[in-house]
Amino acid sequence: MTNIIFIIGMSIFALSSIYFFFAKKNSRINSAFLVSFVTLASYVLMWDGTYIAESVGGQPIFWTRWLFYALSCSLLMLEIAKVKGITSPSKVGELIFLNVLVMTGGFFAAITFGIAKWLFFILSSIAYIIQVMNILKIKGEKSNWVNAYIYFGWSVFPLVFILAPTGIEVFGAAIAMGLYLVLDIYTKIVFSLQLGD
Amino acid sequence: MTNIIFIIGMSIFALSSIYFFFAKKNSRINSAFLVSFVTLASYVLMWDGTYIAESVGGQPIFWTRWLFYALSCSLLMLEIAKVKGITSPSKVGELIFLNVLVMTGGFFAAITFGIAKWLFFILSSIAYIIQVMNILKIKGEKSNWVNAYIYFGWSVFPLVFILAPTGIEVFGAAIAMGLYLVLDIYTKIVFSLQLGD
Amino acid sequence: MTNIIFIIGMSIFALSSIYFFFAKKNSRINSAFLVSFVTLASYVLMWDGTYIAESVGGQPIFWTRWLFYALSCSLLMLEIAKVKGITSPSKVGELIFLNVLVMTGGFFAAITFGIAKWLFFILSSIAYIIQVMNILKIKGEKSNWVNAYIYFGWSVFPLVFILAPTGIEVFGAAIAMGLYLVLDIYTKIVFSLQLGD
Repeated sequence: MTNIIFIIGMSIFALSSIYFFFAKKNSRINSAFLVSFVTLASYVLMWDGTYIAESVGGQPIFWTRWLFYALSCSLLMLEIAKVKGITSPSKVGELIFLNVLVMTGGFFAAITFGIAKWLFFILSSIAYIIQVMNILKIKGEKSNWVNAYIYFGWSVFPLVFILAPTGIEVFGAAIAMGLYLVLDIYTKIVFSLQLGD
Repeated sequence: MTNIIFIIGMSIFALSSIYFFFAKKNSRINSAFLVSFVTLASYVLMWDGTYIAESVGGQPIFWTRWLFYALSCSLLMLEIAKVKGITSPSKVGELIFLNVLVMTGGFFAAITFGIAKWLFFILSSIAYIIQVMNILKIKGEKSNWVNAYIYFGWSVFPLVFILAPTGIEVFGAAIAMGLYLVLDIYTKIVFSLQLGD
Repeated sequence: MTNIIFIIGMSIFALSSIYFFFAKKNSRINSAFLVSFVTLASYVLMWDGTYIAESVGGQPIFWTRWLFYALSCSLLMLEIAKVKGITSPSKVGELIFLNVLVMTGGFFAAITFGIAKWLFFILSSIAYIIQVMNILKIKGEKSNWVNAYIYFGWSVFPLVFILAPTGIEVFGAAIAMGLYLVLDIYTKIVFSLQLGD
């Protein structure tokens, strides 16, 4: 079942990679393409299925996901900084550094168990809250729209993490991967389409 | 015994993270907070104890330490560059690159054995010497104080590395972790406090 | 046999590290030295032989090579950007990001098998083609020479990858490592010597 979801994910992000590559507008870096391309590679590795851990309940944990997020979401951070009008290199650098902390925190929460898992989850959440507060406090032309995107898109990820085999295992890997796929499409493809140029 | 040291480390760096987060002055990036926060995560992972190697003498080698140092000490490098008045982005970039080489060298020296271990130790030391020479040769207002900090703080790390289970095993993991904790407090908390803004 | 090749590689890149360290001209960063130094470390780890995979045909796959390339070739990308007159930080950043994608793609192609291997090889090749197209389309004083270097130097790497134990195993690890050594010398030492200052 996770297999089919990964194949759907590979297909969708292969198509979005092609679309964004040719649809490139006046952006400094073709972030939309690179984000889709990195996500495609992430789905290939999860589909391969060699690099996984096992949850207490015997479900597969696809921990490589968070390492790819560290790359792809750093690019999204660049885009969001541009939309929000954050131009200071050190401020943009801080946002990217915080994003790397959030994702490596998620990675370690996924590969550890017991108290350590929840300590990493808390640390990752703290970095996430600081990152989001930094973004939300800046007012800008497209701010309302970007803020809504952050609330409804990003903040669902940690909820899935808690309920999935990475957390308290309310549901299994198949549902978790399905939900992550929907979130990936929303935060990486729909977001880039709405962003326009 | 290492367990208690890691719990002390987690507590201290949790407190310093909170302190530096709220004590933030006019710094471009809140490096003091981020350095403490990354170090806290490093102690959580060492306390968890899953990702360790074993020395020839049967002692645990906590090799993840050096990967976290690559992150945290790159931020310290940014701070030191600022104090020393190094503003050229390519010069700062070179210092950070050298720091990554020092720490990945330490990481590989920790996870290999025999000749390879000492070759990596030598390569890491060479990168370290080049890095320190680059910093020391620059004169500045606070230079004497920063130079003293580098001599008495940083240069003790490789000594501990040699005498610990990572090296010739003169003492065990508990003493090594205790010494590293003192050094971490001195180079990451005391340094940031002395730096002021 | 691979052992001897790695010892030769370590010796050559130790000598080139020393040479470039002292021959430094007016470059912003001593990239030539750092590239040789990182490559030296890469050969030490391959010579150590602990971190390898096994091909279907029973040959060793030295997958750490591509992680070191991600570091060293990012520096080469900086140099090429300078020679080609690419000064925009975001353009240079994009080239380095693409280089990291090419090398992590190669890394994943080296450690996976079957369809996943070839999917990663294709993804890495796509990133490589985009990277090279970005570089080739820019005209500059030294362009013809740099372009020839790219065609004859870089593009042989994926050919070796396909024919070596990482691919269809036409030849074994010894020949692969010998060819990579020649390519490493050409792209990292000869290139830096020709570049001059």
